[in-house]
Amino acid sequence: MTFRYKNVYINGTGTVTGPYEKKGPLSPYFDKTYNDLYFGKPTWEQAESKLIEDSVDIVLAKVGKTRFDVDLHISGDLLNQIASSDYAASNIGIPFFGVYSACATSVEGLILGANMIEAKQVKNCICSVSSHNNGAEKQFRYPVEYGGPKPKTATFTTTGGASAYLSYDKKGIRVESATVGTVIDMGIKDVYHMGAVMAPAAASTICQHLNDTKREIDYYDLVLTGDLGVYGKQILKDYMKSEYHINLKNYNDTACMIFDLEKEKDVHAGGSGPACAPLVTYGYIFDLMRKKELKRVLLVATGALHSTTMVNQKLSIPAIAHAISLEVVE
Amino acid sequence: MTFRYKNVYINGTGTVTGPYEKKGPLSPYFDKTYNDLYFGKPTWEQAESKLIEDSVDIVLAKVGKTRFDVDLHISGDLLNQIASSDYAASNIGIPFFGVYSACATSVEGLILGANMIEAKQVKNCICSVSSHNNGAEKQFRYPVEYGGPKPKTATFTTTGGASAYLSYDKKGIRVESATVGTVIDMGIKDVYHMGAVMAPAAASTICQHLNDTKREIDYYDLVLTGDLGVYGKQILKDYMKSEYHINLKNYNDTACMIFDLEKEKDVHAGGSGPACAPLVTYGYIFDLMRKKELKRVLLVATGALHSTTMVNQKLSIPAIAHAISLEVVE
Repeated sequence: MTFRYKNVYINGTGTVTGPYEKKGPLSPYFDKTYNDLYFGKPTWEQAESKLIEDSVDIVLAKVGKTRFDVDLHISGDLLNQIASSDYAASNIGIPFFGVYSACATSVEGLILGANMIEAKQVKNCICSVSSHNNGAEKQFRYPVEYGGPKPKTATFTTTGGASAYLSYDKKGIRVESATVGTVIDMGIKDVYHMGAVMAPAAASTICQHLNDTKREIDYYDLVLTGDLGVYGKQILKDYMKSEYHINLKNYNDTACMIFDLEKEKDVHAGGSGPACAPLVTYGYIFDLMRKKELKRVLLVATGALHSTTMVNQKLSIPAIAHAISLEVVE
Repeated sequence: MTFRYKNVYINGTGTVTGPYEKKGPLSPYFDKTYNDLYFGKPTWEQAESKLIEDSVDIVLAKVGKTRFDVDLHISGDLLNQIASSDYAASNIGIPFFGVYSACATSVEGLILGANMIEAKQVKNCICSVSSHNNGAEKQFRYPVEYGGPKPKTATFTTTGGASAYLSYDKKGIRVESATVGTVIDMGIKDVYHMGAVMAPAAASTICQHLNDTKREIDYYDLVLTGDLGVYGKQILKDYMKSEYHINLKNYNDTACMIFDLEKEKDVHAGGSGPACAPLVTYGYIFDLMRKKELKRVLLVATGALHSTTMVNQKLSIPAIAHAISLEVVE
C-alpha cells in the first residue's frame, strides 16, 4: 500500500540523546544531549519518557508553536504498553494516538500523520518515538548490570527521543510518498541477530515501493534503512541482488552511522531502537538535504516485532518495514 | 480533535469469543465461540492471536472479499509489543499498522481507518483487536492458576477477537464522526480499579465531542462506554453530572453487558480488555441499529494505559478514551 502526498512537509524536528550517542560521529546534529542516562528522573523508563517530552518541547520551540496549537500527537516506543509515550502524552496533553511497530514506529507515525495532513483532517501533528538502552536491555534481554556477553551480530539500543512536526506549510522537508509494509516472518529465532530478522521485511517494502511508484532504485539519492546493523545491511544488499536483481548502491543503514563502530566495540553491529533512524535522519540527513547534497531520500524504518513471551515459546520473530520518501523543498 | 465523515461505513464485522462470553447474555450475537481457552493452540498468547485471524476470516467471508482485496489492516491488543496482532498480521499478510491504546484500541483503529477511507487514501481496511483473559492476567497481574482473590472493583478481561471492515460502500453502519482523546492521569494507582482510572478520560472525550460537534448529549440514542465496569460507570455518571452538568440517561457500559453480573460473580465489576467494547457493539448494538431500535450511538472506548513497570515504580495510571459516532444507514 503506497500513499502519494502533495502537501505534507516536515517543518521541524527535535532530537535528544544520551551519552553514547553524544560520543558518536553525529553528535553535532542532535538538538540536545545528556551526559548521563537518568536526565534527572529516578528510573530509566521515566527517563525515556522525558526524552519524548524534551523532543516535543524542542520541536515546538523551533516551529514557534505551543502544545495548544497542535491537533494531534502520535507516538510509540519499545516499552511494554508503549509506556514512555503514554506517560509523556499525559504530560503533553495533545490528542494522542499510540502506535507500535518496534523500530519501524517512527515511519508508521509519519505515514499516519502525513495521511491526515494531506487530507487536511488535521492542520498539523507531532510524531514522536523514543528508546532507552538500559530500559530496552532490561525488558528484552538482561539488566545491563548483569554484564552478559553478546555476539557480534547484536545491536545496541540507542538512547534518544525524536519528534517531527508535520503540516501543510511548504517549509523544510517534503514528504512525497510512503509505503506501508506487511509483516514478514522468515523463521529466524535468534534474538541477537535482528538484522537478519528485519532485512527481508526491508527488501519487501522497498520492492513494493518501487513497484507501486514505478521507480528504479536510482531515483533515490539515498536509500536509508534503520536499523539493520552491519550484518543486516549486508544481508539486505545480498538479498536485494539475489532475489530482486536490485543493486543497492546509494545505500546506508542508520545503525552503522550513529556510533563510531571502529572505536566503540560495545555497540557490536551498530545502533538500534525506534529512536535510531529518526535521530540520524532528522539531524544529519536533513542537514545534507538542506544543503542539497541529497535531494531524494527513501527512509525505510525496520522493526523486529520481538516479543520475549513468543520467543520463549520457541516462535520465530516477525518483522515489518515502512518506507517514506523525503525530498528537499525547492 | 474531532473528525467528521461523509463516506465511511462499517460494512461487516467478525466476532469470536471464548467460553465465558459464550455463557453470557450476548452469546447469540457472536459469530463464533469456543468452548475452551486454547482454540487448538499450545499457549494463551498464540490462542489470542488466532482470535484475530478468525475474526478477519469471518469478516472477509461476510463482505465477500479475500485478504488480497484489502488495502490495510490495523490491529492492536494488550500483549506486550501487541504480540497477538503482530503474529496474526504475519499470517494474514495485509499491509499492517500496529496501534495501542489499551482497551480504547478498537476505536483508535476505527478512527485511523475511517480517516483514510474518507480521504480515499485506501479503498477499504480491516480494524482488529483481541484480548485473552488468561494471557492478560498472567501479564498484568498473576497467572490464573495462582487463584488470588480480587476486590469487587476488578474487571474480568474478555477473551475475544473482533474485526470490522470499513469502506466507502454505503452499506451497514455509518461512521459519522470521531473524537481523539487526550491522556488523563488523575493520580489513581489502584490496578484493581481501572473504572476509576478511566472514567475521567471518558468524561473528557465525551465533553470534547459534544463541544466540537455542538451537540447535546440527547443527540445520541445511546452513549456506550467500554469498559468502565459497574463502579466506573457510576463514577462517570456522577462525574459528568457534578463536573459538566450533563445527565447521562441513555447510557450503558459494555463491561456491564457482556457477562451476567448476577450469575457470574467471578467477573466482579464486569468485562474488560480491548475486545469487550467491539464484541458488544459489533454484535448486539449493531443488531439493534439495524432494527432501527437505536439510530445514533456514541461508542466511547476507554483504555487504562497500565504498565506494570510504571506501577511498580509507584506511578499513577494514565488513561485515554476515543469516541466514534455510529449511525444506521437509512
